This record gives sequence, C-alpha cells and structure tokens, in this order.
Amino acid sequence: MLFVLMGLAAVPAFASSIPQQVNTYRASHEPAIIGQLDELTRFKSVAASPDGTGAAATKLESLLKSRGFEIAQFTAAHGSPPVVFGSYATPGAKHTVVFYAHYDGQPVTPSQWSSDPFVPVMRDEPLSPSAKIIDWQNAKPPFDPEWRLFGRAVADDKASIVAFLAAFDALKAIHREPSVNIKVVWEGEEEAGSPHLEEILKAHAKELSADLWLIGDGPVNQSRRQTLYFGARGAVDMEATIYGPLHALHDGHYGNWAPNPAVMAAEMIASLRDSDGRILVPGFSDDVRPLTAAEREAIAKLPPVDDALRREFEIGRSEGGESLTASTMRPALNVRGIRSGAVGAEAANAIPVDAVVSVDFRLVPDQTPDGVRAKVEKFLASKGWTAVSDTPDAATRLAHPKIVKLVWSGGYPGYRSDMSTPEARAVIAAANDAAGGPVALLPMMGGSVPIYLFHDIFKVPVIGLPIVNHDDSQHAANENLRLKNLWDGIDTYAALMAEMTW
Amino acid sequence: MLFVLMGLAAVPAFASSIPQQVNTYRASHEPAIIGQLDELTRFKSVAASPDGTGAAATKLESLLKSRGFEIAQFTAAHGSPPVVFGSYATPGAKHTVVFYAHYDGQPVTPSQWSSDPFVPVMRDEPLSPSAKIIDWQNAKPPFDPEWRLFGRAVADDKASIVAFLAAFDALKAIHREPSVNIKVVWEGEEEAGSPHLEEILKAHAKELSADLWLIGDGPVNQSRRQTLYFGARGAVDMEATIYGPLHALHDGHYGNWAPNPAVMAAEMIASLRDSDGRILVPGFSDDVRPLTAAEREAIAKLPPVDDALRREFEIGRSEGGESLTASTMRPALNVRGIRSGAVGAEAANAIPVDAVVSVDFRLVPDQTPDGVRAKVEKFLASKGWTAVSDTPDAATRLAHPKIVKLVWSGGYPGYRSDMSTPEARAVIAAANDAAGGPVALLPMMGGSVPIYLFHDIFKVPVIGLPIVNHDDSQHAANENLRLKNLWDGIDTYAALMAEMTW
Repeated sequence: MLFVLMGLAAVPAFASSIPQQVNTYRASHEPAIIGQLDELTRFKSVAASPDGTGAAATKLESLLKSRGFEIAQFTAAHGSPPVVFGSYATPGAKHTVVFYAHYDGQPVTPSQWSSDPFVPVMRDEPLSPSAKIIDWQNAKPPFDPEWRLFGRAVADDKASIVAFLAAFDALKAIHREPSVNIKVVWEGEEEAGSPHLEEILKAHAKELSADLWLIGDGPVNQSRRQTLYFGARGAVDMEATIYGPLHALHDGHYGNWAPNPAVMAAEMIASLRDSDGRILVPGFSDDVRPLTAAEREAIAKLPPVDDALRREFEIGRSEGGESLTASTMRPALNVRGIRSGAVGAEAANAIPVDAVVSVDFRLVPDQTPDGVRAKVEKFLASKGWTAVSDTPDAATRLAHPKIVKLVWSGGYPGYRSDMSTPEARAVIAAANDAAGGPVALLPMMGGSVPIYLFHDIFKVPVIGLPIVNHDDSQHAANENLRLKNLWDGIDTYAALMAEMTW
Repeated sequence: MLFVLMGLAAVPAFASSIPQQVNTYRASHEPAIIGQLDELTRFKSVAASPDGTGAAATKLESLLKSRGFEIAQFTAAHGSPPVVFGSYATPGAKHTVVFYAHYDGQPVTPSQWSSDPFVPVMRDEPLSPSAKIIDWQNAKPPFDPEWRLFGRAVADDKASIVAFLAAFDALKAIHREPSVNIKVVWEGEEEAGSPHLEEILKAHAKELSADLWLIGDGPVNQSRRQTLYFGARGAVDMEATIYGPLHALHDGHYGNWAPNPAVMAAEMIASLRDSDGRILVPGFSDDVRPLTAAEREAIAKLPPVDDALRREFEIGRSEGGESLTASTMRPALNVRGIRSGAVGAEAANAIPVDAVVSVDFRLVPDQTPDGVRAKVEKFLASKGWTAVSDTPDAATRLAHPKIVKLVWSGGYPGYRSDMSTPEARAVIAAANDAAGGPVALLPMMGGSVPIYLFHDIFKVPVIGLPIVNHDDSQHAANENLRLKNLWDGIDTYAALMAEMTW
C-alpha cells in the first residue's frame, strides 16, 4: 500500500523533496523553458499542413533523441502527420507509462487574432485594453506567474510537451532516475479528429505496449487546481441542411405560403433539445452508464466554480439546475452555428433558400456515434423529416414536405475509467505530492479527446493529465497559456515520472 | 354605366383600337424602349446612395420635361432622395390621376449575381445553365417576348417608369390625348421603407391633389395575367439579438451548462410561429378585419397557381392549408435570416456568443406596427425574456437569464380599398380592355407598398397597377424583367391614361 504512504499525509522524506528540487530547477531555467515553447509554437503544425507538422515532428524527435530516448516516427499507410514516438528504459523499472500529447493546433483565422498566431507574444494578463506586452527575452527571471504567452497551440497542446521535457530535464539535473519506463506518443492530427490514430496505434502495438497511458491534454479545473481526469466525453458532428424554395422568394408575396427553412430549422432544433440542455430524442440516454458512488463523491469534492464562471462569462443563468461538472457528465447537443438568409444591413425581405445547422453531440459511456445517429434519424423521421445524404434533386424535393440533408462526421465514443485501480491511486498520490494537497479529480472531462481509443486497443488504464488554464481561449483566437499553469505542470510531470509505483 | 360598355363585352369601336395601335407602336420601338430601361438601370439608385438617387432623379426629371410635363423635385426638410414630380394637364379633363412608382432598388450583394447588377444583361430565358446572353442592341426587332433583362431595379420598379413613358409616347404617336389629368410621383427610397414619404406628401399636398392614385409596383399574378390590387399588407421589421457567453466557449467543456444562444433563438422562433405560418402570439390577430364577400369572391375567381408554383419553387408543401392568395390575406411572421456561430468548414466546437434573428411582420388591416410590437414584447416577456434596446452591459447580462435586444424599424400598416367605387370600376374596365379579357383582381397584395399612406393623407381610392413577372427575383440577386410583361404593361398604362372616365 505504498500509494498511501506517498499520498496526502505520510510522504517519505526522500520523496517530498522532489517537488521542491524541481521547483528550484525550474525557477532558474524559466527563460529556457519559455524559449522552448516559443520555438515549438513557431512551427505551423496544423494537421492540414504536411510541411508544418513534418518540421515540428523532426524538431520534437531531436529533442527526445538528445535526452537519450529511442525514437521513431509512425505514419499511416497512406500518409498522415507523423506520430513522434520515444522510449526511455529505466533500469529496474517494473512498469511502463506512455505520456501522450499532440503537437498540432486548431486551424487559425488570423484576422481574429491580436497578434500573429505563430509568433508568440507575452502579456502581463489576459487580453484586455490594459494588458501590456512583455519583452520576456530581456526580462529578469523569475517571471510573474500570471503572465500569459499567446499563440496557436501554446496551450493546446504544446505546453504539455514542454512540461514533459522540462520535468525530464529537472529530474536529470537533480540526479533522480524515473521510477517507471517512459514512452512518449506525440500526435500530429488530434485537432482534425485523429483520423489515423487507431491505424497507427494498432500497427505499432508492440512498441507501444505499456501499463498506463497519461493523456496530457485539456484544461485544469476552473478553480485553477491541478487536475486529473479519468475519462472524456466522446463526440459526433452533424450538419443539417434544410431546404426552402429553390430561389429566394419575396416574403411579402410568399410569406405564409412558401416554407421558411429558417423557421423549420428553429423547429427542428427546439424539437431536439430545450434551452436547459435536455435532449428530447426518446431513448437518447438509454445507453448512459450511471455514475458510480465514487464518481459522484469526486464531483461533490470539487471546488465550487459555477458562480465565478457565470460572472466571468457574464451569463445570468446556466443550463439545467446542476453544477458545471455534473452537467458535463451528461450527453450534450451543442448547436455550433446556424446560417440562413441574412441579418443586419444585408437582411432582405426574402424567404431563404436553405438553413444550415451545425451540431455536435457529446457522448458519454456507453453511447456510440452509430447509436446516436440511429436515434436522431428515427426521431426526425417521426417528426415528418425525410433525411437525405446528398443535395436533393427536384423530384426528391417535390415528393417530400420536409427534407433535411444530414452529414455525420468525426465520431468516437466517450470513456470513463475506474478511479480506484492501483495505477489510478499511484497517479493520484504523485499528483497530490506535487501539488502539496489534493488535486481535483474529474470522473470525465466535458471536452473530447480520443482517450477511449487507447483503452480499446491496449486494455490498460487511461488517465488525463491536463495542465493548462481553463481560460486559455482554446480552439479560438488568442489562445494563451498562464505561466503558473506551466510551472505547476512541470512539477506534476516530474512527480509522475519519478514517484509512481504500484 | 360606361364602365360596362368599356369592359369585357361591348367595347366601343373607337376605344378598342387604342390597345391595337399602342401595340403596333411598341412593336416598332422595342429597341428604344429597352434602351430607356437599360439607361435607367445603370443609375445606382439605391436609397442609401445620395449620388445614385440624385443622378437618377435628374434624368427622370428631364424625361418628363421633354414630354411636356411641369416638373419638380421634392425632398424632406432634413434631406432625402428626391421625389420626382410631374404634372400634365389634359384640356377638358374632369379628373386627375397620380401614377406612382419608385426608382430606387434594393441594396445588392454583387457576389451573388451572375452579372453586374447595374449593367443590364439580356438572356433568352430565366437564369439557368442553358440560358444564352442576347446582344439585343444588335438584334432585329420584334424581340422574343420571353427574353428577360437582368439588373437591379429593372423590375422593381424601373419597368413601371419605362412603361409609363412608353405608353405616354405611344398615345402621342397615335394622336390620342389622355382622358384624365396626369400626375407622376416617382419615389427614391421605397426599398428603404419610405422613411420621408409621409413628410413629403403632406408638405406638397396641394400639388399632389388628385382623384385616384395608381401604384405601379409589385408583380402580376403568378398566372401571368395582368393584375390590379386594391390594397397591400403593411410591414414592420424586428431584429433580435440573443446573448450567450461573453466569449465563445469550448462546447465540450461547457456544453450543457453555458447558455447556447443559437438554441435560445430557435426556441424563441418556434414560440412565435409554427412551420405552417400560424403566429402563436396571443391576440395577434384580434385586429384583423375580415374579408368582405366581394373580396372572397375575387380571390375565388383568381386562376389556380399553387400547383404550378410548388413545381417552380421545388417545394413539397406549402405552409398552412390555404391557397397562396388566401394565405397572404393573413398577417405573417417571416424569418429573413439567422446568424449564430459558424457552419461548414468554419464550424468550431464552440458555444456562440450570440444569435441574431432578422424578422419582418406583414400586417393586414387593421393591425398597426405599434400594436404588433406591444403584443410581441408582452408575449416574449411572458416567456421569460428581458427585452432591451441597447447592447446590455455586464450588470444587465448577469441580472437576467434570457436577454434579447430588439430593434424595430420600418413600420407601416396594411390597407385594403373598396373594389366597387366608380374609380375602381373605371380602372378595371380600362385594364380589361387593354388585356382583351378579365384581369386578375387581388383584394390585397402580399408584398408591402406604402399604399395606406396615400389613402390616409388624400382620402381618395388607391389601386395597385403591377406589371412585372412574379418570377423576377425581386429583392434578391439576378432580378429580371420578362419582356412580355413590359409590353403588356405599356398597353395597360396607355389604356388607363386614355380610357378612364367616371
């Protein structure tokens, strides 16, 4: 029961010094660590860009090689951004842990950014009129931990890679060997939905054999407390196109008679879910596995964040009556966008020709993308919709009163792992030690990472190890990383490498 | 009962020749008439452009002056696009008729057009892959009457102006004096909601005194039969902005918890009306004046068009169970557009910050814009909405669970006039004579023209005289005029100028 000794109360003296020593190392290496993140951010490693991901992968490979890792690049049979693989054998170690992260970022819309997404900028606070740009290269360390570095993928997910490297360097500097064998899997197309990850993992199952996967992705709890998550919601996307008249029609002459696709879209959305987040598709939640008592207890122990978040987001309510974390344990139907006709100065007195609704579903165990699709399509049929998968021709349009083109994409299921396995307990103990107190334990993250896949293929526990700030503008413009989160992340990574035993 | 003699059966010999003679004149002047329309279309007379409307007004003035009209330009005290006024006194005439039209067009989105909106293009059929562009300037008349001229305002409403001018020229050519005194009112901001028309009409009530107004605007019946309308629906616009989180939020981490404004918009729309066009606001139709027996009879006599239109528009149903004309006798709530988040390739896994819904209401007698606004706002309040008129600040956002910014604009009431007055009978008889048979009589046009205003101010009958094809893509891209409609319109205008007596 070593994990108890290493946990909250009775940490052995030799172990308790690791976080302190790592912290001291980090404080004297802050410019170099930020320099490493700055360098990686300048690679335009968006999944759709082979040049960007290829150059980044080559750099990452060299960073592992120089630290003594065996290295390789894995690609799909018909091409893909490379998975950067590294392996470090610890003499005498019983167990092997894979540290996963992804080096690709979401595509950017540069016009929405306050600075070039691929030229990192340091500011003294979150983006605001009062925020000042910091010339950090010429600033004297230690840096203010509330500073933030802005750039695409700086938080999602290159911070995890830099935290891993810095933690490894820190352990070496304090002459501390890892307690486990370490493998690294750094993916290059997570933000594109990991279309080749399954193929690559299966093709290299032997090299990737391990006892535990740690997924370095996602933000920490909104309380800013270091967090572990034991699962993630899955996701499947649906784009619905609803058809009105072939040409836009004057809504005076035809309003009340020609079907209005914007109204049909509104009716469809309102039939699928209500404004409290309840999904109205019959049987939608039949496959939802109830939370265990331990999971409910973990949620109850999380620091309260809802009031502060409502203030931060300036919202006068939240959907449903539950806390944020409890809400994200349920499946969700998110409307990501609607486009029909025109508004504002471009609005014309016309019945639009179509309405497009972009939706993603967030799935929880044991829902599947196929199951969700079947239920949604059956429900829409019961409401009089004719679902098609291609743009309908005239005969189809004339034959059916309500036609919707449905395009489904990007699906994978959700996952929740057992929070009480020996591996889970070892991870929690090491993270608690690094944090100097209990970390936030999340049964499942609301956002989706392809965590189910690792478990499906390797049948070992998979645990999420997020380090970045929740307010990182992830997936949007002006993505940013709060330095304190990186510092805490280095401590946590070092403890996980050096202290885990089971 | 002269109107009977001039009507269907027993047209006096001297009168029956006018349409024939006008027709002969037109056939030998087709290039010049189209040339006139081409010239007028090249003026970028959109209400928001003072240069475009000013230049067009100057041109129109000169066209009237050269035909012997007394002319003037009327503008609002604080500026407006000019109303072009003309007056032609017929010796011995007992009555005076005002011919109204507007020379401004809807704003354009050039990217949606197949050709420059302000450089007219002739095609041999409606826009389609098989349509050919015609070099009409070098074509030998008579032109194929199914050809169509494409350009902004070519149909709505410059065709009416050209028909008037050509009819006047034809009468002169056949040495036929008008039977009435003629006045012309050509407005320059109808498509912007006629914001200054009331002021101008009242300021020039003396010059504008008349016994009858004929409103040259709107399309003819879908049967392509020449049409008269005796009223028009009113309109009032509403733009609703619904607020979500202050910044776009990752919909995995916050989906089910942060309010989704796209869903709220859908729920609002679905609460206001259903997909059969029924408005669900309590008491919304309390002010609706029932149709008279004569009006119901006129509707019943209209040629059946619904099946053909459903085929033309490729729609598998129409809203509600009534015919198009019966449907447009009721008030309507049209959703002109919705914008929230993003769809297609730009869709991101984010909860949008807002949703904008552009609506117009079509009103029927005796509804008023203020009455509609009061009922809608009361209804939304009963559904938990807090309506504001400015973008809400943080305190407002935090204090209310459902906030909607409502911007109302452009309102005026509907109008229906008596179809059995002597003036109405004279108009019907002349139009029937020009058409060689009964024209379509519409108690009220679905589209809105500020027809109520002429009646409110001048207390004389106001009758609609549309000439353009219903499939003219009015208010949308690729607006077009079918030549046959212009030819028929010239005949009708000439008959109305020369044959009306009461």
